[in-house]
Amino acid sequence: MKKNQKSCITRLKKIEGQVRGLQKMIEEDAYCVDIITQTSAVRSALKSLENVMLESHLQSCVIGQVKSGQEDKAVSEILKVYKLKR
Amino acid sequence: MKKNQKSCITRLKKIEGQVRGLQKMIEEDAYCVDIITQTSAVRSALKSLENVMLESHLQSCVIGQVKSGQEDKAVSEILKVYKLKR
Amino acid sequence: MKKNQKSCITRLKKIEGQVRGLQKMIEEDAYCVDIITQTSAVRSALKSLENVMLESHLQSCVIGQVKSGQEDKAVSEILKVYKLKR
Amino acid sequence: MKKNQKSCITRLKKIEGQVRGLQKMIEEDAYCVDIITQTSAVRSALKSLENVMLESHLQSCVIGQVKSGQEDKAVSEILKVYKLKR
Repeated sequence: MKKNQKSCITRLKKIEGQVRGLQKMIEEDAYCVDIITQTSAVRSALKSLENVMLESHLQSCVIGQVKSGQEDKAVSEILKVYKLKR
Repeated sequence: MKKNQKSCITRLKKIEGQVRGLQKMIEEDAYCVDIITQTSAVRSALKSLENVMLESHLQSCVIGQVKSGQEDKAVSEILKVYKLKR
Repeated sequence: MKKNQKSCITRLKKIEGQVRGLQKMIEEDAYCVDIITQTSAVRSALKSLENVMLESHLQSCVIGQVKSGQEDKAVSEILKVYKLKR
Repeated sequence: MKKNQKSCITRLKKIEGQVRGLQKMIEEDAYCVDIITQTSAVRSALKSLENVMLESHLQSCVIGQVKSGQEDKAVSEILKVYKLKR
């Protein structure tokens, strides 16, 4: 879990750098299509991070919840995550 | 255009803050579902920015391209943006 | 479950009608933007159906799987569904 | 254009068949994950059709609109299509 945490923070630091790169692109009047391509890449990086978080959530929290009688909480939270804007 | 640029940078600074907030959430072992909800909010903020960028691209670059005979470039770039991972 | 099944079939019959409506729109040379708006509506209807199916999958199959030691199958299938093209 | 129209109708007839296939899967109590995988495939087929429609819209209607002074209509409709639920 700790290893997973570290890897998530590394990903987020990279994403933070990409967001600062986007600010620079706009300041330097980069071509709109290149900026949109780059914001879309940042969204993909966030989506990958979400996949990792969800996998770890399912493997740890959800299984524990189902085994301890908290099925309703487990199910409604997975559905919530599934319906989040994509 | 300059005004638009300034507003995009303000949005990106806010997004940068949100990404740092996510790092803190992970360091402090926040609940996975709350983290995923927050990364999804950051993706929505990036998507809104893309809508603004695309609108400005269509209103300025694309119309200029079509009027100066660069229709093919204009069309293929709009399709490229449209197909970017969502 | 039977009631759920019936409601899913009703939804699919409506979707089938919408798909036939789209064929008619194209034959009658409807405006492209109107056709795209309508195909998008059909995709939303399919997405809603998927939400219903997923909810029922989580409430029945997944909980049974976790309780009978098939956690790995349960987790990998939820991730598979989550990553399906949206 | 006529050739394009014919190919779109062929795609829609295939999609209609897939939707009927889904009804059968539900009637025969297929596994939920298989049904969701299949509805997702139908949504992808609809999305591909939208890409074709949008390309033809940009190449014909939009260029004509921009050249005849209807830029505002052209831009707002492309944005509308871009923001449609995905």
